[in-house]
Amino acid sequence: MLLNRRQDDMGLIVQKYGGTSVADTTRIKKVAERLVKRKREEDQVIAVVSAIGDTTDELINLSNEITDQPPKREYDMLISTGEQVSVALLAMAINELGEDVISLTGSQVGIITDDLHTKAKILEIDSSRLEKELAKDQIVVVAGFQGITINDDITTLGRGGSDTTAVALAAKLDADICEIYTDVNGIYTADPRMLDDAVKLPEISYDEMLEMASLGAKVLQPRSVEFAKQYKIKLAVKSSFNYESGTHVKEVEELEKGKVVSGVACNTNEVKISLIGVPDRPGIASKVFNTLAESSINVDMIIQNVHRGEVNDITFTIDDEDLSQAKVILNELNKELTIEDIIYDAEVAKVSIVGAGMVTNPGVAAKMFEALADADINIEMISTSEIKVSCLMDEAKSQQAVKVIHDKFNLGEKQRVSDQNV
Amino acid sequence: MLLNRRQDDMGLIVQKYGGTSVADTTRIKKVAERLVKRKREEDQVIAVVSAIGDTTDELINLSNEITDQPPKREYDMLISTGEQVSVALLAMAINELGEDVISLTGSQVGIITDDLHTKAKILEIDSSRLEKELAKDQIVVVAGFQGITINDDITTLGRGGSDTTAVALAAKLDADICEIYTDVNGIYTADPRMLDDAVKLPEISYDEMLEMASLGAKVLQPRSVEFAKQYKIKLAVKSSFNYESGTHVKEVEELEKGKVVSGVACNTNEVKISLIGVPDRPGIASKVFNTLAESSINVDMIIQNVHRGEVNDITFTIDDEDLSQAKVILNELNKELTIEDIIYDAEVAKVSIVGAGMVTNPGVAAKMFEALADADINIEMISTSEIKVSCLMDEAKSQQAVKVIHDKFNLGEKQRVSDQNV
Repeated sequence: MLLNRRQDDMGLIVQKYGGTSVADTTRIKKVAERLVKRKREEDQVIAVVSAIGDTTDELINLSNEITDQPPKREYDMLISTGEQVSVALLAMAINELGEDVISLTGSQVGIITDDLHTKAKILEIDSSRLEKELAKDQIVVVAGFQGITINDDITTLGRGGSDTTAVALAAKLDADICEIYTDVNGIYTADPRMLDDAVKLPEISYDEMLEMASLGAKVLQPRSVEFAKQYKIKLAVKSSFNYESGTHVKEVEELEKGKVVSGVACNTNEVKISLIGVPDRPGIASKVFNTLAESSINVDMIIQNVHRGEVNDITFTIDDEDLSQAKVILNELNKELTIEDIIYDAEVAKVSIVGAGMVTNPGVAAKMFEALADADINIEMISTSEIKVSCLMDEAKSQQAVKVIHDKFNLGEKQRVSDQNV
Repeated sequence: MLLNRRQDDMGLIVQKYGGTSVADTTRIKKVAERLVKRKREEDQVIAVVSAIGDTTDELINLSNEITDQPPKREYDMLISTGEQVSVALLAMAINELGEDVISLTGSQVGIITDDLHTKAKILEIDSSRLEKELAKDQIVVVAGFQGITINDDITTLGRGGSDTTAVALAAKLDADICEIYTDVNGIYTADPRMLDDAVKLPEISYDEMLEMASLGAKVLQPRSVEFAKQYKIKLAVKSSFNYESGTHVKEVEELEKGKVVSGVACNTNEVKISLIGVPDRPGIASKVFNTLAESSINVDMIIQNVHRGEVNDITFTIDDEDLSQAKVILNELNKELTIEDIIYDAEVAKVSIVGAGMVTNPGVAAKMFEALADADINIEMISTSEIKVSCLMDEAKSQQAVKVIHDKFNLGEKQRVSDQNV
């Protein structure tokens, strides 16, 4: 039935609204208006919604009042109520505007995940109920960020998980587009909250977006971009506060013209961990990183310095939300490994340039290093891929670093008008 | 497996904690201590929990900011998050004390209800998961007040629904006792917040409790008492703020001695509705009451006065939470019935005496009316059953009424010592 209807040239769009877009009941009513407007233009609309503004933080505060080590299953049980509140309220607001609507939790929408609580991965989507509700010609409001294990336990998908919910549903139902609504107008050459001069990009490739997301552009969750790329879901990042066109995320060959450097990203959510004086035996590093991986802690940048004969220093970065768990793991490991010292440094930032054209343009990294050197900013670690170069530095210098790199590659508003990009 | 274990003389208790017992994280930790203590004494403990203190009101406020007519399905979706928050936090607190624990939502615990949202009735309980979790020798914390329809929609059981959840689970699992924890020490001869002189009853019959509950004693939900009576579940009403013995609710033949009047209840949550000048045709009254019943609006007291030949006055009372819905229904009905006037009066209270021995003691009602007459309190409506007499009156007079009736039947602390009850 659904497929029959779709063949009749009717659109299906998935829209995702983040926490700032539904910050209070006034904003929820605005989002309801947008959805109703779109429903009356298109045919089928699914809205994926995050928790209201600071609800999640309030729930975390309650949890902290009880314990600093909550069982992760119970943490998910607690936190997932945030989205349930916002979908119910949004459904009420849509109903108030006279459109048929139903809200669904992650469980009801059939988002089956693994049991890795607080950062679960979607295994499959049983979309039968969702399709049934869509076929009733109503707006379906879906709780983002959450799913359910095959054992019927509530899970959450980790930071920014609502993006993944939206893209996964768009993929499952072969939606025409997945629109991610946020409080900025799209993807910029740098964080516009950090740099006035930043320019909105009308389009960007999946790969660039993936790097931007991973690198702390904070607009899209990396996993959602991977999903979109894999299933070729058209993505758009837009503001829920206006009707501007936003940034469209596409295959690189669909972009109007490749740029060497598309933007500068800054991530201050990393922590640098230095293991000082690690015994120089085979398998030590793999032991450390395997143990972290078993606890689903992603390690980002890694440096190993052989410098004192029998001992090495290993330095790496992780996401700061994994820090307390990493400390427990490393202290435990240290009982058998006899590492001389473990140093944690949260006052670091990773500043990166991203660009699909970088791979064919030698000298881009050197130009970035030059900009940093000219500004007397010390680089602590470097990592590169085909489309990005990242430098770890003192967090206090990161804003200046973004500015000098942005200027160096002429990414700003004024340069754009007269200059070529590189 | 569960039954095998039970045969080995191990106890199963169900405890229900209301909103004031889990008013904040400090209180939640206290409840966790009680549960852990009990778990270490008994063998299997199920805790049924209400929403934290004023959470439900906060959620209702959010709903009111959106609309004054929320779809009931979405209202349940919203409100049910309150219990989900409290069970997760209580499970965290129990885990922190070193006991194994799991929290379950109404859906996870298999409480299947009809689809009468906001006041759903339990149809059946699929206790397979609950039994599986109990068999793991852990405390199971269950979200009260909520269930799920066969179509996987979240429902709530209406005011005080957590009591029903607790008793229904106790019945399903043949628990040894169901303990209802609240912020008073048990059932009193009158509301101790209204009358200093009220005395705690060590025991009371199901039928008396049922009348007390229905009449506004506010301690137990009537449906939960019916359930307990039907399945012969031992009930106890206790305070979560101390370890006193509370009030035990039993079969009347198990009571130590039958009293004529056990207590005086006062319900200020009723609204009196007068239909003035109703055409005197057969079927009009049944039309009115059937239509209200179809919307699950319970009508309590009813008087019909034939007084002007062709028209009647019909006066009845309903719960004040049904008032806005009743107004809509009656206005609609009035289009065809041509009632002269409809008068709503919320400033009424129903004061009642309850006692299992009343049926065999004539003159009890007369004694109550005398007490009210002596205090110059006008009785607007009267209803009686085998074990209760209720009088509707001006709400402003209700506290005085409770006092004079309580005195008349010598129910107070001082009288108890020297006098006999009637």
